[in-house]
Amino acid sequence: MSNYVAPTKELQFVMKELADIESIAKFPGFEEATPDMIEAILEEAGKLATHVLDPINLSGDQQGAKLVDGKVQAADGFKEAYQQFAESGWTSVNMPEQYGGQGLPFLIQSAATELWNASNASFALCPLLTAGAVESLIAHGSDELNAIYLEHMVSGNWTGTMNLTEPQAGSDLAAVRTQATPEGDHYKIKGQKIYITWGDHEMSENIVHLVLARLPDAPEGVKGISLFLVPKFMVNADGSLGERNDAYAISLEHKMGIHASPTCVMSFGDNDGAIGYLIGEENNGLACMFTMMNHARLEVGMQGVGISDRAYQHAVSYAKERTQGHAHGHEGRVAIINHPDVRRMLMQMRSLTEAARAISFMSSHAHDVSHNSPDAEERAYYSRRLGLLTPVSKAWCTEVGMEVTSLGVQVHGGMGYMQETGAEQYMRDARIFPIYEGTNGIQANDLVGRKLLRDKGVAVNELIAELTEFTEQASGHENSEIATIATMFTDSLHAFEDATLYLLETGSKDPNIAAAAAFNYMMCMGVMTGGWLMTKSAVAAQAEIDGGNTDAFYTSKVTTARFYAEQMLPRVLAHKTAVLNGEESTMTMAVDAF
Amino acid sequence: MSNYVAPTKELQFVMKELADIESIAKFPGFEEATPDMIEAILEEAGKLATHVLDPINLSGDQQGAKLVDGKVQAADGFKEAYQQFAESGWTSVNMPEQYGGQGLPFLIQSAATELWNASNASFALCPLLTAGAVESLIAHGSDELNAIYLEHMVSGNWTGTMNLTEPQAGSDLAAVRTQATPEGDHYKIKGQKIYITWGDHEMSENIVHLVLARLPDAPEGVKGISLFLVPKFMVNADGSLGERNDAYAISLEHKMGIHASPTCVMSFGDNDGAIGYLIGEENNGLACMFTMMNHARLEVGMQGVGISDRAYQHAVSYAKERTQGHAHGHEGRVAIINHPDVRRMLMQMRSLTEAARAISFMSSHAHDVSHNSPDAEERAYYSRRLGLLTPVSKAWCTEVGMEVTSLGVQVHGGMGYMQETGAEQYMRDARIFPIYEGTNGIQANDLVGRKLLRDKGVAVNELIAELTEFTEQASGHENSEIATIATMFTDSLHAFEDATLYLLETGSKDPNIAAAAAFNYMMCMGVMTGGWLMTKSAVAAQAEIDGGNTDAFYTSKVTTARFYAEQMLPRVLAHKTAVLNGEESTMTMAVDAF
Repeated sequence: MSNYVAPTKELQFVMKELADIESIAKFPGFEEATPDMIEAILEEAGKLATHVLDPINLSGDQQGAKLVDGKVQAADGFKEAYQQFAESGWTSVNMPEQYGGQGLPFLIQSAATELWNASNASFALCPLLTAGAVESLIAHGSDELNAIYLEHMVSGNWTGTMNLTEPQAGSDLAAVRTQATPEGDHYKIKGQKIYITWGDHEMSENIVHLVLARLPDAPEGVKGISLFLVPKFMVNADGSLGERNDAYAISLEHKMGIHASPTCVMSFGDNDGAIGYLIGEENNGLACMFTMMNHARLEVGMQGVGISDRAYQHAVSYAKERTQGHAHGHEGRVAIINHPDVRRMLMQMRSLTEAARAISFMSSHAHDVSHNSPDAEERAYYSRRLGLLTPVSKAWCTEVGMEVTSLGVQVHGGMGYMQETGAEQYMRDARIFPIYEGTNGIQANDLVGRKLLRDKGVAVNELIAELTEFTEQASGHENSEIATIATMFTDSLHAFEDATLYLLETGSKDPNIAAAAAFNYMMCMGVMTGGWLMTKSAVAAQAEIDGGNTDAFYTSKVTTARFYAEQMLPRVLAHKTAVLNGEESTMTMAVDAF
Repeated sequence: MSNYVAPTKELQFVMKELADIESIAKFPGFEEATPDMIEAILEEAGKLATHVLDPINLSGDQQGAKLVDGKVQAADGFKEAYQQFAESGWTSVNMPEQYGGQGLPFLIQSAATELWNASNASFALCPLLTAGAVESLIAHGSDELNAIYLEHMVSGNWTGTMNLTEPQAGSDLAAVRTQATPEGDHYKIKGQKIYITWGDHEMSENIVHLVLARLPDAPEGVKGISLFLVPKFMVNADGSLGERNDAYAISLEHKMGIHASPTCVMSFGDNDGAIGYLIGEENNGLACMFTMMNHARLEVGMQGVGISDRAYQHAVSYAKERTQGHAHGHEGRVAIINHPDVRRMLMQMRSLTEAARAISFMSSHAHDVSHNSPDAEERAYYSRRLGLLTPVSKAWCTEVGMEVTSLGVQVHGGMGYMQETGAEQYMRDARIFPIYEGTNGIQANDLVGRKLLRDKGVAVNELIAELTEFTEQASGHENSEIATIATMFTDSLHAFEDATLYLLETGSKDPNIAAAAAFNYMMCMGVMTGGWLMTKSAVAAQAEIDGGNTDAFYTSKVTTARFYAEQMLPRVLAHKTAVLNGEESTMTMAVDAF
């Protein structure tokens, strides 16, 4: 087993050179986000990840969360880890100071999120869900509700959950049936929810469930669902905890991975009725839910990045230790990292991880600018950018997570298939990321349907214009390696433009064309956008090298960008061609013929 | 849970239209392989797969094989299933009649192998390993040894194992340390082997271990290893079983998947010394091992095909039942198979599975012709073809197995991540196929190093010539859809030719170029060869349609081939470009920089 090491230098590089943290730090309220501060935060986060979370990852997988006497027991060490996590302030990094938060940029929170997910994805889900609930309350909750709940959630004293799915209502929330009946100042909630992450546990004093339900006589479909806050323990007027509310985990799912994260079937109101409070307006639950969801999508993208980096580190460690066979240019038996195909796998893992990280950080950058810039036009521009990048961050980075963790298994050979090695856990854990918080198919449809077609290509064309300007300059770089990388990127940008034009022209005429091509378009955009950011990294690294910096970090950056351009960017062509080949062969076959 | 249905019509189509079973059936000894006979065999095999093996697949995963008091216990139902399997003659389909086998073509055995692996991959491994051991004994065992052992192995009364790997000797068998000391008419074997599939169990009366070991004073490296037969129970002169030999399973691995297949750590000679018998010549173990291995590689390719088809059927069944959301052109809530992105996934699963099956069957075809044709020149031609296709069958078809089973999970959404659904088991089971019997990286190196470069391109150029002739004709097909498919295939063939030329020119100068590009070349060849066979399928199906056959099977064949051409073949370009971009960015980074 390798020990996880937080890639703090890399994180700082990406924040500075790509996600422009220095500009973000100039926004009102972000003045504390100085480079020194960021370095200190990442180092402390790295210590917790390495020494507390990583060591209980494999044991957590093997032990799993358990439901005992109606209560969920977390795996050994998780409660203590959570308390340390909350006490150290990691639940409140980007939370408003008004509720006890630290008010730092979301970008810094994202960097920390990578570390939690790299070291322990099961654990990381608990604060991830809480943060989504907090976002939703801040945006939609009443002042009264927020006064009671938010401070405890920001401090990590209480955690949060998202209760959306029901057996018949997965991707299609219009089918939600859970009932909410008005009763005085509150509602009585009755229904069953499935797939509730960290739906019960005793790591925190209380749990705040956000629950989608339907009022009596609510309109059918998504316009008739409302969001409710349902606490595990009622809260007294003085803020102390009162009686147990009628909200229970009644069973846990047996899953492929993230075993230490309890996935609960939650029953609300099976006995006396669960007391809940309306969040936002009646029948406006979908908007409140999307606030949680959009936040969660960016964070799930970071899960893909984190687990990719962890799998990469694990594989590198093994590849340097394990000797097997001979290799050209080496004497005697060699460590397998010297075998070209093992290097090919490691470089693929490394470059995809860097590209995914860069895309995710750019989404967080867009989030911060769109929320905090004093310039309204800039806010609007980056709001469109955020909308555009969110589905790509979620979907492409989690596809990368699957590819990289699977390669991690392969690097280990037979050992990779053994549970004790840990490599296969990353692959099993990573397999949920493309599914939850909106499947990657749904992300792709969001990208093409809402962010490209409904937007009439505005946001995409803004991106293309920015990238065109960038690459015209980079292609003329005096360093020939950088110029070569940029030229390859230019080709991929043109391919993406072709795919974009095709969908803008045909997609609005036939919705099936857009929907059938959506996944390939998303992948095309992901690989291409990764290429932009890898090229930009190479330019920045080359500037360091040209300035006399001899740190191997910078030459490795250039090499990794070149590998990405030569070996990964060609995928853009395959995805573009698939898009341009249309929907007919996808849609033609009769259902019975399958 | 869906019920597995053997795709007998598809199997017969591929055998007839692609793998030319009618020509094979004309070879001496294969006269019994008539179309009726094949249909009857596949129907019987299908029944066993559907009614006996499929029902114990999920329970076998959940229960797993266990080591109790030094003996391996198979999961419930496996012993009874094995006995039925052996009694029905499924261990002897292509085995020589001399030893009680049925003497049928290997192609028919391959088709059956697909069914065993589709329904229960853990189970299928037991006869798979036995068959490899039988092949090795037939090729290298002495008449005395074969007289004692082969009949029992062919009948399935006894099973076989392959004991190659040791902790320090995985891909690199030169490092084998297990000792063999001569003692009278036999040898004493001492050492530990790991990853021994079905290394112990009580499903059969005896187990015949084939064990790689080193004689005293043997030369170092692979030229000093010999192969020994080590029975679990000694065999008396009258053929009855005697004393327990000193060969024990001392522990079982905890694996990601194939839980019902016991993966044993085997200890030979820990007590009195294990008695073993030399197979073939001293120090010639590698050749004997490769006989097993080449056989196993083709069968592992079939594992990829089988599990892909099973995952596809499972996903189709779910996609037809599960209703969620609305779709363009449909009223009300729809079954998810009507959502374009779900169809995209299903068509991808379907077309990749068909392409992989076609490639595997072409390997089996080459196997039969190279072994059984009366024409020496034809035997030699197909011997080269078999060598060329074997690594592609093993590697590409198992890469397909991973992709298709992962898509199968995705089609199920959240349900796909739950163990009870069964979809995730296919993905976990499939993950070992790219690793064992020579990792896919090793297959790719075998393809480029031995089958392309050492062969100076003879076999590859024979293939290209054959495909060029085929596609020149098909591109001019009077049916425009077929002509379009063929034209797309032509492009992929040219891309493959470019990659081939590049490697022939540069690969022999710098071994790193060949080795770094090998995986992409293998993938390029896999996708392209799949394109050839899908196009050929479409041509054959169109002939049926033109002849008035209105069975939807044939129109679906054409549609699936078109989907493959439009959506999968573009990958050839990405792989080719990656090959042509050379090895520099893969090989440049210093080991310390990783």
